[in-house]
Amino acid sequence: MQNDPVEHLIALLSRLPGLGRRSARRAVLKMLMDPQGRMLPLAKALHAAAESVRPCETCGNLDTRSPCAICRDPQRERKLICVVEGVADLWALERAHAHRGTYHVLGGLLSALGGTGPDDLAISPLLRRVETEAIEEVILALPATVDGATTAHYLTDRLKPTGTTVTRLAQGVPIGGALDVLDDGTLAAAFKARRPL
Amino acid sequence: MQNDPVEHLIALLSRLPGLGRRSARRAVLKMLMDPQGRMLPLAKALHAAAESVRPCETCGNLDTRSPCAICRDPQRERKLICVVEGVADLWALERAHAHRGTYHVLGGLLSALGGTGPDDLAISPLLRRVETEAIEEVILALPATVDGATTAHYLTDRLKPTGTTVTRLAQGVPIGGALDVLDDGTLAAAFKARRPL
Repeated sequence: MQNDPVEHLIALLSRLPGLGRRSARRAVLKMLMDPQGRMLPLAKALHAAAESVRPCETCGNLDTRSPCAICRDPQRERKLICVVEGVADLWALERAHAHRGTYHVLGGLLSALGGTGPDDLAISPLLRRVETEAIEEVILALPATVDGATTAHYLTDRLKPTGTTVTRLAQGVPIGGALDVLDDGTLAAAFKARRPL
Repeated sequence: MQNDPVEHLIALLSRLPGLGRRSARRAVLKMLMDPQGRMLPLAKALHAAAESVRPCETCGNLDTRSPCAICRDPQRERKLICVVEGVADLWALERAHAHRGTYHVLGGLLSALGGTGPDDLAISPLLRRVETEAIEEVILALPATVDGATTAHYLTDRLKPTGTTVTRLAQGVPIGGALDVLDDGTLAAAFKARRPL
């Protein structure tokens, strides 16, 4: 036991987010019970995805083709660009059917501490898109953190000369959220941004 | 997005124990950031393990060779067989360096409800080993559940005619375990089996 191919596989799997050594071992054991039905299909799917998936050269989304399915879709509203930090956020917004326009993936956030400057992010391509594609509204769907706010502020400044409307997501009480378990910052923001019924 | 190879991969990964859809998606996104460094090595490792790992024909352990490394090891005490439900338990005992003999994997437990009878488990091969290999002690390392107890009882009956000693693991307070969070059954068993100091 603890043989090489199995240990190697456990080590690789346990590097994935959400999988520790223990759960990686359980997953490998489960797969070893049925190598043909579980292990080889997964190997094949990983190989296929690695070979075929690439970033969209327009928006930065990951897809098998570039431009991606969203950028190619004639139904999407081309005048609305939603700016996100990463592909995970893009997928989350798509699952929520929140946005009918296109996206722009920054690939990170401005961070003085992390040493991430404007040139490390896809900001110039965004400005180019806004200038050439007659964009009406840029929606900043960035996280409500210090870096998110810094990035939103910087982007607003850079986008102002283009004349587009720049908006950001509303902050407030999450749907189904109980007030007494909410953090103070969110509660204060929701109170301040209260709306008439 | 939600493109086929990626969705297919997420679906396969989320079938593994310990990974839900959400964590599978995070893992896939992380891997897609570095397909060459993360995805292809994992695909290769899965393929290698699926092709090379098989059950040991003596004990049922999973290894790249049969007989497995433990059954081949001249240092192991051949007169002690430790009987376990599955390979996961064998690996756990090996990690704990608990046993210096060999193993025998039953491949399950007797279960009236689950419809698992003696012929569904590797019980005949165990009896054959005990008879032909001059085994001195069979250690039943089975779970402390109803099915585990049933299986232990059945094995004890079947092994009695061979004249080998049959033992089971001690039950009691886990090392480092606080008494007040322990379940009543374990506490009662530990009290009953108290030992002089």
